[in-house]
This record gives sequence, C-alpha cells and structure tokens, in this order.
Amino acid sequence: MPKRLSVQAYVDGVLAGNRMVLSRAITLVESRLASDRELAAQVLEACAAHSGKSYRLGITGVPGVGKSTFIDAFGMYLIGQGKKVAVLAVDPSSQRTRGSILGDKTRMAQLSRAEEAFIRPSPAGRTLGGVTRTTRETILLCEAAGYDFIIVETVGVGQSEIAVHSMVDFFLLLMLAGAGDELQGIKKGIVEMAHGLVINKADGENEAAASRARGEYKRALHLLAAAESGWQVPVLTCSALEQRGMAEVAEMLTAFQAHHQPDGWWARNRQAQALQWMQDAIRFELEDRFQRDEGVRAARPGLATEVEAGRLPPTIAAQRLIRLYLQGADEKSAED
Amino acid sequence: MPKRLSVQAYVDGVLAGNRMVLSRAITLVESRLASDRELAAQVLEACAAHSGKSYRLGITGVPGVGKSTFIDAFGMYLIGQGKKVAVLAVDPSSQRTRGSILGDKTRMAQLSRAEEAFIRPSPAGRTLGGVTRTTRETILLCEAAGYDFIIVETVGVGQSEIAVHSMVDFFLLLMLAGAGDELQGIKKGIVEMAHGLVINKADGENEAAASRARGEYKRALHLLAAAESGWQVPVLTCSALEQRGMAEVAEMLTAFQAHHQPDGWWARNRQAQALQWMQDAIRFELEDRFQRDEGVRAARPGLATEVEAGRLPPTIAAQRLIRLYLQGADEKSAED
Repeated sequence: MPKRLSVQAYVDGVLAGNRMVLSRAITLVESRLASDRELAAQVLEACAAHSGKSYRLGITGVPGVGKSTFIDAFGMYLIGQGKKVAVLAVDPSSQRTRGSILGDKTRMAQLSRAEEAFIRPSPAGRTLGGVTRTTRETILLCEAAGYDFIIVETVGVGQSEIAVHSMVDFFLLLMLAGAGDELQGIKKGIVEMAHGLVINKADGENEAAASRARGEYKRALHLLAAAESGWQVPVLTCSALEQRGMAEVAEMLTAFQAHHQPDGWWARNRQAQALQWMQDAIRFELEDRFQRDEGVRAARPGLATEVEAGRLPPTIAAQRLIRLYLQGADEKSAED
Repeated sequence: MPKRLSVQAYVDGVLAGNRMVLSRAITLVESRLASDRELAAQVLEACAAHSGKSYRLGITGVPGVGKSTFIDAFGMYLIGQGKKVAVLAVDPSSQRTRGSILGDKTRMAQLSRAEEAFIRPSPAGRTLGGVTRTTRETILLCEAAGYDFIIVETVGVGQSEIAVHSMVDFFLLLMLAGAGDELQGIKKGIVEMAHGLVINKADGENEAAASRARGEYKRALHLLAAAESGWQVPVLTCSALEQRGMAEVAEMLTAFQAHHQPDGWWARNRQAQALQWMQDAIRFELEDRFQRDEGVRAARPGLATEVEAGRLPPTIAAQRLIRLYLQGADEKSAED
C-alpha cells in the first residue's frame, strides 16, 4: 500500500465515510513535510465544501472528573439516536503516540467498538499551536466524512481550553460535586467560558452532594457570569458510569442551538471562528519565521535578560530584534 | 520653547519629577513620527534604570460605577499617607483629545489640583495596541519621575481589561450593589481576573444592599474563582463619595504585596509581563508590516469572504496571503 494516496482517492474515501482513508487523511494533515502540506491543502480544499454540518462540542474537566466515561456514555447515547460521532483530543502534553489508539480504546470501551464512532488521539510531540491547527483541520475532514457530532476533548488545566473554545459551537465543562473547592484544578476563566456545566458522578452516596453543588453553581453563575445573548448557562447532573442524564445533556445542546440559530449567533460565531483561525495561522507563520531567524536567535537571550532585569524597555528590545530580522531577510534576498 | 528637548533635558526633568517635562516626555513617547520614536527610545532607555519602584494598580468597572470619584478619593487618601500618585487611562474609544485635560479635571476634582498627583488622559484616536504600548511606556516615565502609585484606569467593557491586567501588579474591579445582575455590563472573564473587588456607593439607603452583595460575591468567588497562589480575592465595600473605606482598600493592596513578595510571585509576575510586552511589540510590528502590504490588502477581502462562507479552509487562505506577502517583500528588496 503506498504511503500517500492521490488527492482524489483521499477525497473520495473521506466523502464515502471510509474510516481508514479518513485516518490516513488526518495523518497527512498532521504531517510537517512540505510535500505533504501541499497535498493536504488540496484535500482540505476539496473537502471544505462538504464540511460545516456537524454539531461541534468541546468538553473539558480536570483529570479524574470522568471525561472518558462521559464521552463513552454520551457518544453511545447519540449513536442510539442514529448519529455518527467523532472524538478528537487536544492535549499537547499527551504522551500518547499517534499509533497507540490502545489507550483510547481502553478509555472509551464502547465507542471504540462502535461502527458509528471515530476516535482520534491528539498528535504526539506537538506544541499547542500545532495541535490546534491540525485539530481544526481534522474537524473539517470528519465533517466531510459525515459525522454528526464532533467531540473535541481537552484537559481543564491550561491554554488548550481557550483554543478548544475557539473551534466549537458548545463548550461543556464537566465537574464533580465536592466541598466547594472543586475548582482548585481548573484555571481562572474556564468556568465563564462554558455554555453548560455538567456535574458527573451523581450516583450512589454522591447523589445528594451533586444536587447541592448544582444549586450552588447555578446561583454563582447567575451572579458572576454575564449571559451571552440571553443564554442562561444550565447546570446539570449525570452519572456517566450508570449512563444516566445523557438525554438531558443532549436536550441542552439542542436547546442551545434552537436559542442561537434563529438570531444568527450560531452562524456568526462560526464565521468569526473561521476568520480568527485564518488570523491565527498568519500570526503563527509570521512569528515562526521570525523565531527561526539566526540573527534573532543569537541576540534574543541577551536582550531578554536585560528586559527581565528592568534595564531595557521591552519596546526598545523589540525594535532591535525587528531590525536584525529585516537585515537578515534583506541579505538572504540579496544572496538569491 | 522648542517643540522637542534634548535627551538629557527630558531625562533630567523626568528624574527631577518636573511634571511639565514628564508631560512632554509622554507626548514624545506617544508620537508616531519616526524621528520622535528614535528620541523616545533614548529617553526611555535612560529612564528605565530608575523605574520599577511603584505599586502598579489597575482599576476597572462599568460606566456609572463611580471610577473617577473612587480614584479621586483613593488618590487623595494615598497623598495623605505621603505618597505621590499618577493616574493614566487606557480607553481606545475615548473621544478626549490629548490637550483636553479639562475632562479629567472635572472628573477628579481634588486630585487634579494636588501637587503630588499627575493625571494623564488616554491618547486620542488610537487602536488598543497603540494605547497599551504608550501606556506601558508612560508607566516607566512616571516611575522614573518618582510616583509611588501608578493607577491605570479602564472601562469594564472590552479587551482593554486584559491589556491593563497584563501591565499592573494588582487588578481591582469596582462594582455596584444591585439585584444580582450587576454584571450585565461586564464582559465574561473580567471578574476572574480581579485580585480584589470593591463595591462602591455603600452609602445611605444603599449600605445594606452593598453589604449583602459583598456576602454573595464572596461566596460566588470562593466557588468559581480558583485562588492564585493562595490569595483569596477580598470583597470590600466603600463610599468614594463620602471617602469611606479607603484605608481598607490600601490595606488590601499592602496585604497582597506582603503575600506575593516573599514567595517571589511579585518579581516573577513583573518579569513575565516585561517579556510578554516585548513579545507583543514584536508581534504588533510583524503583523503591522503584513497588514500594510499592498498584495495582502488587495487579496484579503476576497479570501476572507470564501473563508467565512466555509468554502476555503482558513489555513489555505493564510498560506496564500503569506506567499503574496513574501513575494512582495522580495520584489521590494530587488528594487532597492
């Protein structure tokens, strides 16, 4: 089997919903080889017209909250409703290698065996910028392959939430009932980004505590989180383990769409996300070229030390580095 | 009087605490003329060694919360404690012109007459990037001029909070007591950025409501806002109008410094802010050059339309624009 297919073979396979071809198309998109990037661009452009029809759902929560069990249970619920579900992970710290889906198979026992599901782990050894670029492109490919729900999963402890929030329609925060300090592991600002909170593990002895936590969060959210175009952030409870509360979560997603589609927010949000993505890609490329410049790399550490010590105003240091960069670019042009 | 002074005259005047020279140095720093930028860089570099000794305090709150009255009262309290106070504004939407300090004189009646205070309005007609660059440089100049407290004021309705948060030691959110929906005007995430909340207008009939609101915010913050290195965000009440509660605000600032200086957070935060500022300046310059490129300006609107419509993947559009930009840069080099 050839390492790379033709553009047409990738596109046909993806549009036909062939999971093996989809998987290979994602690998192509994740590749950093210049030759692959060119091929990937053609595949993506051909698939773009067939994308955009899914519900893009971001899910976050600290380790231990039961994200995998929840996604497994909720994904199976959706499949039971006749939907196809893709699960992607944004976790730049992930130690999982591209090949080892074993970890995800163990994590999501039912979904990983379902014909209607597609699970793709985070590309290994990537910076956040790299992971988010390929995740966004993977969303497009999964949509072209006919998945109705794209679940983008991340860990509630860093910058990756902001990235995931910028690529989904609904951002769901999974939580636990506790002593009122359950947010210790969650970074500031994450709660206020959520379109809905779900308190997991509302089962057995935990059920009363989950119900209490639900009331507390509702009050706190009412006080602290300004409503986005009239949407009051719901707080639900569920037991992913016992597969209870999944219908309510699905109803919340439907209600959100019903609330935001008529007034145009839904479409505007996606347009704004697409433009932001273009802007991010431009910025990433411009900064990447700057960072790799030899003159910049040589001078930067010394200037940074002066800046940190307060001896050099940051703007002056920036001006000097930009000057070095432009000189370097000029000399390279002159050599050509 | 010449329009511009010599580097030495600017530096000597600023270090001597001469408010007129300080004012002219800030005007120099705000100038966009290339010749002024060079002169400004020299002045800033000479002043940098004398900067960094102030308490940098950011204050935000929606219009109507009483920011001006609060800053007037708190500034006068600090002056009563033997301190010198500078007040800067970050408000890119401001209609005030550089010359019209009249507006600020009316806004802060006592401070504007005090010898120990220096009030500088936001430069008019600037983008947020431009305002924040000059505000950060203005902080350095005010510090070199011996001001003990630099108060950076902004309006609680946008991106400018994030910018101000990134340039101060303490970020204070001014609020009002109300029906539990007093955050309607405050953007998501602002509350969680605050190091302290102060409920203003706790006077007359409002006093009981302010006290109740204080309790509610304390509980909500405890639940929703993860503590930054063990700092529990205080919620205070005050009456700027009756000049009550100012000592408690000052004590809160002192307690924050006492909490964060021994463990090194204070210094690390400033170092990180300085590096971030350098990074922002580089990014701003790189993007500015890109935006001004003729080829990019011609092609961008059409590509953006395709991206918004979902017909072109954003990364592909970005690649095309970058290619145009690099071609343009090459041709310009070849013409030289």
